[in-house]
Amino acid sequence: MSAKLGAVGSPFKLIIVLLIFGCCHTFALKPHILGRHRLTSLTAQRPITYKTCYFEQQIDHFGFLENGTFKQRYLVNDLHWHKEGAPILFYTGNEGDIAWFCNNTGFMWDTAEELGAMLVFAEHRYYGESLPFGQESYSDAKYLNYLTSEQALADFAVLIQALKRTVPGARGSPVIAIGGSYGGMLAAWLRMKYPSAVIGALASSAPIWQFTGMVPCGDFYKIVTKDFANSGPNCSKNIKRSWTAINNLSSSEAGLEWLSKEFSLCSPLKKPEDVFGLKSWLQETWANLAMVDYPYEANFLQPLPRWPIEVVCKHLYFDKDVSDYQLLRGISDAAKVYYNYTGNTQCLNISQTATGNLGMMGWFYQACTEMVMPLCTDGIEDMFEPQPWDFQAFSDECYSMFGVRPREDWVETVYGGKNISSHSNIIFSNGDLDPWTSGGVTANLSHSLVAIKISNGAHHLDLRYNNEYDPASVITARQEEVKYFKQWIKQATSSR
Amino acid sequence: MSAKLGAVGSPFKLIIVLLIFGCCHTFALKPHILGRHRLTSLTAQRPITYKTCYFEQQIDHFGFLENGTFKQRYLVNDLHWHKEGAPILFYTGNEGDIAWFCNNTGFMWDTAEELGAMLVFAEHRYYGESLPFGQESYSDAKYLNYLTSEQALADFAVLIQALKRTVPGARGSPVIAIGGSYGGMLAAWLRMKYPSAVIGALASSAPIWQFTGMVPCGDFYKIVTKDFANSGPNCSKNIKRSWTAINNLSSSEAGLEWLSKEFSLCSPLKKPEDVFGLKSWLQETWANLAMVDYPYEANFLQPLPRWPIEVVCKHLYFDKDVSDYQLLRGISDAAKVYYNYTGNTQCLNISQTATGNLGMMGWFYQACTEMVMPLCTDGIEDMFEPQPWDFQAFSDECYSMFGVRPREDWVETVYGGKNISSHSNIIFSNGDLDPWTSGGVTANLSHSLVAIKISNGAHHLDLRYNNEYDPASVITARQEEVKYFKQWIKQATSSR
Repeated sequence: MSAKLGAVGSPFKLIIVLLIFGCCHTFALKPHILGRHRLTSLTAQRPITYKTCYFEQQIDHFGFLENGTFKQRYLVNDLHWHKEGAPILFYTGNEGDIAWFCNNTGFMWDTAEELGAMLVFAEHRYYGESLPFGQESYSDAKYLNYLTSEQALADFAVLIQALKRTVPGARGSPVIAIGGSYGGMLAAWLRMKYPSAVIGALASSAPIWQFTGMVPCGDFYKIVTKDFANSGPNCSKNIKRSWTAINNLSSSEAGLEWLSKEFSLCSPLKKPEDVFGLKSWLQETWANLAMVDYPYEANFLQPLPRWPIEVVCKHLYFDKDVSDYQLLRGISDAAKVYYNYTGNTQCLNISQTATGNLGMMGWFYQACTEMVMPLCTDGIEDMFEPQPWDFQAFSDECYSMFGVRPREDWVETVYGGKNISSHSNIIFSNGDLDPWTSGGVTANLSHSLVAIKISNGAHHLDLRYNNEYDPASVITARQEEVKYFKQWIKQATSSR
Repeated sequence: MSAKLGAVGSPFKLIIVLLIFGCCHTFALKPHILGRHRLTSLTAQRPITYKTCYFEQQIDHFGFLENGTFKQRYLVNDLHWHKEGAPILFYTGNEGDIAWFCNNTGFMWDTAEELGAMLVFAEHRYYGESLPFGQESYSDAKYLNYLTSEQALADFAVLIQALKRTVPGARGSPVIAIGGSYGGMLAAWLRMKYPSAVIGALASSAPIWQFTGMVPCGDFYKIVTKDFANSGPNCSKNIKRSWTAINNLSSSEAGLEWLSKEFSLCSPLKKPEDVFGLKSWLQETWANLAMVDYPYEANFLQPLPRWPIEVVCKHLYFDKDVSDYQLLRGISDAAKVYYNYTGNTQCLNISQTATGNLGMMGWFYQACTEMVMPLCTDGIEDMFEPQPWDFQAFSDECYSMFGVRPREDWVETVYGGKNISSHSNIIFSNGDLDPWTSGGVTANLSHSLVAIKISNGAHHLDLRYNNEYDPASVITARQEEVKYFKQWIKQATSSR
């Protein structure tokens, strides 16, 4: 499937897909490294232990002909749980291995004791071990048919109902949904669609409005650009110039050879068209850096220094009179901050984010069906080459990949779009460095649909472990979040 | 399919299915007669006209492999609509031809002018003309797979979104969902699941709690019994005695012959087992009478006199010393009030409610998948032979009919069961004569989830046209309902 992706139509379309996917997905790649890294963080001295459990789920909640079931994985820690109606924090798993999200959501581990809460991390169907048709799950469009957010939400609601019925002491336990990124969207939607299952939701960095007609498609890359512009002199300007420089060099064989060598590419560029791949890979790299611009050394998408964009920008200080070669050497050094902070990387692979793993294919499929999140650039208000959003081209590409076409308007109908104020008890938290804030809820919609802004915060910083370098904003955000949790729990307990 | 039904397992199981179905379904049988009758009612002088429209709907809203569409029928009247943001009353069609519901929901026609409202009546998929696979829709389990309440709600939400986008002046129009019986459940659920589509809902006689574990399964028939007990001396007692009398007579050929003749059966009873069919038909008849015990001549399930149960009970006044023959002659005369009020019926057909029409088969399928509504009798607190609820037997029967098994707990998970207080703007109206009140919401759940009780009210009396014989309770109920509508419209308009 991913090989097919590389072969699809114009490179322009390819970039669109990769961006959507790459920015919201590659999280699932390196759980092991991340797990090890976590040990060096402030709170990681506390051992993280959990039970791995499996729950028999219907493959199709919305039809009765397919009556098969599959085993949904979920992880449980009840070390601090006070039982007898004490709360459950329920992570609504997103597009990847749930163990990785479990390790990456330190906020829940940091908060469990204070709330006397049980922690549950539920895996999203079609990811990790929760494969409805086992190894066949991705082999055919007919097996992929049950990979939707609605089915995933139903899994969560059914699992919660089952936990309440079967775990001694849990019958009256209020459940709070927590998630980040797509998982944050699911947390918010779970509260909207199944308010009997969860008393409230923390939707961190959840771009629930990054859909057709809700926000301008260019905002995402404007934020990326702003992050670079604010992290060093001339930084975004030089990235903006770099595209022309790449185009200039790519017109000759010598130029392609120079680029391949300079960027230490594993597979050298052979034809002028190959340069589209290089450019889309760089664009994705800058976007990913904006997402993980954390104030401390971390290893989310890659092992990175603290404030990685500042480090990147140290290689991109040139003023106007720089040559194409000088500029692109800087770009190459900047990219290597992202890809080779450890110094162990032998060569850079520009198809890196498109190599196959179940998670990637799953998110592609979701983007090609419901999760149509238009992104675009104009080259004026952002540092990228202009690239309009082209739904039809996107749809055609999806059709050629999966035999399905995206339904552009469905998410707005099913999840209410901008008209969600009748719901209650949802916290939308967003960091101002995070490009996904473009599609997030950043102002209160009612007294119980609240927005928390985290200045100097990247992608769901609030869900990460406490860290000595945390900005004050995220410390306050987490306190507020816990305050709301306690309020909801009190409401739920008193109304029993 | 319906022939198969008659052949299924024990007659006990058959009764269970027929009851559920019969009581909530046979509404769809005689639109023509009803339409004619309406002309004699007080308000029917006003001509009812509507446009018949069709909307292209996805066959599967929750999966992308089946990308086919079908034409959903909906009826529109905008005679009184004030346009430019004036309200839309949207009937959430239930298990039958929408033209019939349109003719049967006089309340909307009576209210349109006062509210300056557009009226829309949307047909439920798989009923009337809205057949996803045309005449094949019921021919195979694979075609029936998209007959669920979730798909129907999605149809309504998508249609509303489309109307707002395409009808000039409707963009800002607040939409109120209105429905009765299963349509009332859909109205409530539409507000719960798609609050961005409708600002509120009137769920009339909607037994949203008639599901496993929510209410006692015996309450339905207790209400039926109470209606008969209150409508004439010894009335329910004699019905209760009748089952033994029927059993006594059915043991001999002569007895069967007598019964067949006395009840003017089109197909004489041949074997002692045939008597199960007679008894289940009578049980259903009494239940139907309880549903349509209206204070004026009407023609809902059958043409009937005003307060039909009182008329029925005039044939059942006997005290204890009555013979089996006398008693059953009374029962027969009573049944003929229901089946032959016009005097034109030649013979009575005890498989009447099981003969095939699309609507019947559709509701069977829905009862066999999601809409598992347990009913039972104990012969002590009701006037029927004891018949416990047997889920397994029901499930087995469904499997043999459709190749699907019902999911007993799903409705509670998906629609919240008793835990729905976080929703808003829903009116639940119920009449105390209506047996479906057993599964209805009869007490306020919050300031905006309100219950309206209609004393001396049968099945969704409030949705019918104004009538000179209306009890004060239903006049007040309708006034309250309109008051809430205005309040919701004001809220919606002021928050724009």
